[in-house]
Amino acid sequence: MPRPTRPAPSPRTRVRRLPERAHYDADTIAAIVDAAMLCTVAFQLDGAVHAIPTIHWREGGHLYLHGAKASRMLKALTEGEACVTIALADGLVLARSAMHHSMNYRSVVVYGRFEAVTEPAHKLASLRAFIDGLYPGRWDTLRPITEKELNATSVLRIALDEASAKVRDWGVKDDEEDLDWPVWAGVIPLRTLAGEPVTEPDSVARSVPPTRFG
Amino acid sequence: MPRPTRPAPSPRTRVRRLPERAHYDADTIAAIVDAAMLCTVAFQLDGAVHAIPTIHWREGGHLYLHGAKASRMLKALTEGEACVTIALADGLVLARSAMHHSMNYRSVVVYGRFEAVTEPAHKLASLRAFIDGLYPGRWDTLRPITEKELNATSVLRIALDEASAKVRDWGVKDDEEDLDWPVWAGVIPLRTLAGEPVTEPDSVARSVPPTRFG
Ligand SMILES: Cc1cc2nc3c(=O)[nH]c(=O)nc-3n(C[C@H](O)[C@H](O)[C@H](O)COP(=O)(O)OP(=O)(O)OC[C@H]3O[C@@H](n4cnc5c(N)ncnc54)[C@H](O)[C@@H]3O)c2cc1C
Ligand SMILES: Cc1cc2nc3c(=O)[nH]c(=O)nc-3n(C[C@H](O)[C@H](O)[C@H](O)COP(=O)(O)OP(=O)(O)OC[C@H]3O[C@@H](n4cnc5c(N)ncnc54)[C@H](O)[C@@H]3O)c2cc1C
Ligand code: HEM
Ligand code: HEM
Repeated sequence: MPRPTRPAPSPRTRVRRLPERAHYDADTIAAIVDAAMLCTVAFQLDGAVHAIPTIHWREGGHLYLHGAKASRMLKALTEGEACVTIALADGLVLARSAMHHSMNYRSVVVYGRFEAVTEPAHKLASLRAFIDGLYPGRWDTLRPITEKELNATSVLRIALDEASAKVRDWGVKDDEEDLDWPVWAGVIPLRTLAGEPVTEPDSVARSVPPTRFG
Repeated sequence: MPRPTRPAPSPRTRVRRLPERAHYDADTIAAIVDAAMLCTVAFQLDGAVHAIPTIHWREGGHLYLHGAKASRMLKALTEGEACVTIALADGLVLARSAMHHSMNYRSVVVYGRFEAVTEPAHKLASLRAFIDGLYPGRWDTLRPITEKELNATSVLRIALDEASAKVRDWGVKDDEEDLDWPVWAGVIPLRTLAGEPVTEPDSVARSVPPTRFG
């Protein structure tokens, strides 16, 4: 990856450790958000810091979450600042020296405040985008969602504005004098793959739908 | 999985949403910590909440981290409370209704304060355990670590005492009256696998070492 083409959006998002791995452009950030399905959302509540794993999806310049209207996490998120973290493990990097071992990765850290998506048409469209983004075309084939289900669900979003990405995507660095040390040096890629689907015994439909995961 | 066999270790670790998915026993927690390589560490600094992805490993009842002695994250962690989050995505759960879609997962949330591992023999033994835990037997084959490298590195650990696990590991739940809706219902498992290793062009050793990932 080339060096960052634009500056950090705020002082606190400026990557200080290994800043040559930083990216602040919206396209790099969006691509990492889309490649991941899970994020961790950190927030402050009752004087303590909490960090909770959750599914996310992206629409334009926002990252979206969903859950129970009664959830502590979702309530806390509209009342204070949050930090959202996404990390993808792309490879194990094995060097000749212990210290130069590393990982290839893509990560994003976002600061800001979530807002609730309450406007009914927007909320419905977002839930449709969530389902269809994972399983193309699925929304229209499902048992239609009810008012009661919609009312029990919260949808929140945060702007991907105060965000940074950090990426490592290359081979092994070792000290010059260690290059002929007789131990294997290289990268072992890691990938998340879909396995064999398990159809429910009582599923009337038997053919597995396509997913974003191939 | 059976119901939790012991109570939450503290009021704030008691899982309130879907508590039937909670586990508080040390063995369940340790197994999830070991199955994951990455965690997210959340901490408070300068009035804001930060959450940073990092590698972890476990020794007994502690989760360990490493990084630069000069790192903001590692410095902040010994000065205040932290929350560590681990999440593994095990499967996509597709239901007949939108709302009953879900994921199979294993997650852990830990609260507490990190302590620095500074005693030289303990620190060295921990870094060895870190490398050999990923790549059995590798430490002894590496270019030996130097004093300077050890001095530049911090190792921190947190007790897995104030911790909870949450697990979903089964099929599809749908409302009774939706069971014959003609759309596929089932689980698509997800797995992270090691791909084809990429040997460095200048690696003297050409045979790939074993890893914990098979
Ligand atoms: C898969 C993975 C594994 C990692 N393992 C380790 C490890 O074992 N040890 C270790 O020290 N570090 C590890 N890192 C790097 C780690 O995430 C931090 O970048 C690093 O520890 C420096 O943290 P800091 O708070 O001191 O950074 P600083 O550079 O001081 O952070 C300043 C700001 O930069 C941004 N930033 C920092 N890190 C990231 C990031 N990863 N992604 C996007 N924005 C970021 C945030 O806005 C942050 O507030 C790992 C990263 C990933 C993705
Ligand atoms: C892979 C994955 C995807 C998820 N996706 C979603 C989603 O899209 N929407 C959603 O609402 N929820 C999701 N969850 C569940 C989420 O992590 C929370 O459990 C849930 O949102 C309730 O949060 P809360 O803060 O309101 O919980 P509460 O039950 O009030 O939390 C109380 C305490 O229980 C413990 N706890 C809570 N959650 C967890 C956990 N996951 N693991 C271990 N301990 C925990 C913590 O100690 C926490 O402080 C997902 C979980 C995983 C692992
Ligand atoms: C045991 C010997 C090791 C030592 C002494 C060591 C030392 C360090 C140090 C000092 C840093 C901070 C870099 C910086 O912020 O400037 C660091 C970061 C890191 N280490 Fe290690 N490390 C060791 C093993 C490993 C192993 C085995 C892995 C991979 C499995 C690894 C993965 C990483 C990663 C991913 C980072 C973050 C780099 C970044 O910010 O982009 N390290 N390590
Ligand atoms: C679009 C329609 C959807 C609606 C209305 C909906 C609604 C909800 C609600 C209300 C909760 C909170 C449960 C609770 O805390 O009591 C929840 C949690 C959750 N949802 Fe959804 N959901 C939808 C789609 C999905 C999809 C497509 C997935 C999977 C990809 C999913 C995965 C989850 C997960 C993993 C949880 C957490 C359950 C737990 O805490 O163990 N949801 N959802």
